[in-house]
Amino acid sequence: MRDVYIRGVGMTKFGPSERRLEELMYEAAVAAMSDAGVDDVDGVVVGAMSPESFTGESNISAFITDYLGLVPKPTLRIETASSTGAAIFDGAFFALASGFFKNIMVLAGEKMTTMSTGAATRILSEVLAPQERRQGGTMPGLAALITRCYMESYGCTREALTYIAVKNHANAVKNPYAHFQYSVEPSRVETSKTIAEPLRLYDCSPLSDGAAAIVMTTDKAPIRVAGIGHGTDYVALVDRESLTHFTSTQVAAKKAFKLAGIKPSRIDLAEIHDAFTPFEIIGCEDVGFFEPGTGWRHILDGETQIAGQIPVNPSGGLKARGHPVGASGLAQIIEIVWQLRGDAGARQVNKKLKYGLTQSVGGLGTSNIVTILEKLV
Amino acid sequence: MRDVYIRGVGMTKFGPSERRLEELMYEAAVAAMSDAGVDDVDGVVVGAMSPESFTGESNISAFITDYLGLVPKPTLRIETASSTGAAIFDGAFFALASGFFKNIMVLAGEKMTTMSTGAATRILSEVLAPQERRQGGTMPGLAALITRCYMESYGCTREALTYIAVKNHANAVKNPYAHFQYSVEPSRVETSKTIAEPLRLYDCSPLSDGAAAIVMTTDKAPIRVAGIGHGTDYVALVDRESLTHFTSTQVAAKKAFKLAGIKPSRIDLAEIHDAFTPFEIIGCEDVGFFEPGTGWRHILDGETQIAGQIPVNPSGGLKARGHPVGASGLAQIIEIVWQLRGDAGARQVNKKLKYGLTQSVGGLGTSNIVTILEKLV
Repeated sequence: MRDVYIRGVGMTKFGPSERRLEELMYEAAVAAMSDAGVDDVDGVVVGAMSPESFTGESNISAFITDYLGLVPKPTLRIETASSTGAAIFDGAFFALASGFFKNIMVLAGEKMTTMSTGAATRILSEVLAPQERRQGGTMPGLAALITRCYMESYGCTREALTYIAVKNHANAVKNPYAHFQYSVEPSRVETSKTIAEPLRLYDCSPLSDGAAAIVMTTDKAPIRVAGIGHGTDYVALVDRESLTHFTSTQVAAKKAFKLAGIKPSRIDLAEIHDAFTPFEIIGCEDVGFFEPGTGWRHILDGETQIAGQIPVNPSGGLKARGHPVGASGLAQIIEIVWQLRGDAGARQVNKKLKYGLTQSVGGLGTSNIVTILEKLV
Repeated sequence: MRDVYIRGVGMTKFGPSERRLEELMYEAAVAAMSDAGVDDVDGVVVGAMSPESFTGESNISAFITDYLGLVPKPTLRIETASSTGAAIFDGAFFALASGFFKNIMVLAGEKMTTMSTGAATRILSEVLAPQERRQGGTMPGLAALITRCYMESYGCTREALTYIAVKNHANAVKNPYAHFQYSVEPSRVETSKTIAEPLRLYDCSPLSDGAAAIVMTTDKAPIRVAGIGHGTDYVALVDRESLTHFTSTQVAAKKAFKLAGIKPSRIDLAEIHDAFTPFEIIGCEDVGFFEPGTGWRHILDGETQIAGQIPVNPSGGLKARGHPVGASGLAQIIEIVWQLRGDAGARQVNKKLKYGLTQSVGGLGTSNIVTILEKLV
């Protein structure tokens, strides 16, 4: 099997856009190809969670490949709900490792702001188990159940959730690609509208438009894909052994660390899927940064700040960089690339960086993916 | 890169079913695992064109993996419109070739008969270019345009289209998995309702429900994946250089034959994507069985009959085995496996078989895939 490297990355600013999905994807793709210094690739892997539902588009991979001027190159679409952006990276990784391709572009995007929040939430909630949807379960509703369970099991306070929202908004202010370009005070978070008790508006990632692209390669380049892992879990929460962790992340992390041949303590920074603020705590524990039940305390101690021991979501995370569902997983990886290269501007982590990790949640923890990137010296 | 083999196959009967998509997929998956003699796999690649639109289902790969009892194994969904079943095989092929996996199940299905033909046709037509849809273009309408162009360019007669419909219905009668279990007379084809001139009802594949599964492996087994190729084309017909062939098939076939190291004349039988009868002619020409413009004459000479020189669609094809869109590409491959093994019952091609080929059309020729299987001696 061949080693796989990152040749170039690109993304659009996330947030509401008047442009169509293909225009957003075009911008990201051109940026990635320009960054990679290539004007052609051997194939295109397209990621989008649900263009059929959000904008009525079908056959998206062929359409985008045509739009990019890359006909007759092969293309396919990969989808794993909200971890789609990481899944296309996963799929392309194995295709490249096979030795059949030299350069593959992975390109993800979602256009969500064309509809009301209620309609979009309904689409996003279709990833849940039918029996739990029938009982009125929605994505924020079931995320709130997980949050309550974590908080009550480990004594986690409201303050910890607020801290994450404040931290990620503050990071996003330093990220020109972020949806939200403003910081928030704790009081603003804690007095914001209740979405599903105990989750308030500022605990939830927004609906965003946006696209992200990476040119992956088997030619040696400064950033190597060191580890990759993917796990699943029962779709219905009622079937799970625990609600205070995601088994799917734990399985994925174990595989990724095994492949990379390192332990979690070697990771210098991470992007964790904070679609809801408590998921950042659970994600940090599941990948092994903190012991179960202790993550919220470490976070309150400032350890995940950009200047902390293990910076988490320097980009602003899904919470504040925004969450165009299909694109988020790839945007996480791009942030790690920028950080490892020293290209992250005002939000640059100022220490020697070697390993960065991303963790992506598909559905409500049903298809989670962990990726580890290594900066070669 | 590792060689990839077929370990086991399974499918449901195609046609209208009262069962849900996951139940159909379960039956196919269990049949494939049983045929393969395995009770576990390293991952599941799920294919479905549009469960979001047909049955309102999302996050399908995680849902199916859970339903199959395969949690926490990794899973993802691959989609390329109507060639989806071949695309999942494609994706799993490269993942296996990388050496990271030993057994992968590819599992495809579609549930289409829950809605009216008109509503389903609207969904199927979403794969077309927006500018051509705005002008009233539908899938049968644009297929009719291609048909007229081929017929007028090469003097192809109505009789050739009818011949294909009659042949494929006759083959389907011998296939217990086929949607249509009856033969048709030429007069019935030629007096059937006009769908889009010159295409009549019996020139068009039906809306079907069904699922198909294959366990692919890197362990040596009697059927090897010898070649695989994938090409794309401009989505809008107006942008194409010609309407009498699919460039995407030609590109795919060239790659597949190069990888297999053989010429088209070595192929012993084929399954060609006959969503419309004329596509069987065009497909046969594009993969290299016949010179451009001559396919219809060879077919009228009986060369593609089960007892002919190059049997095409012994299963009944999409036309008569049925066309649950996401599953068809995989069902084609399964038919070749059964034929190469000598397990095709009453429709068995009675000659020494070594190489079989499948050709799948994604959208209106936008993402076409050619696969070549080899029976090892």
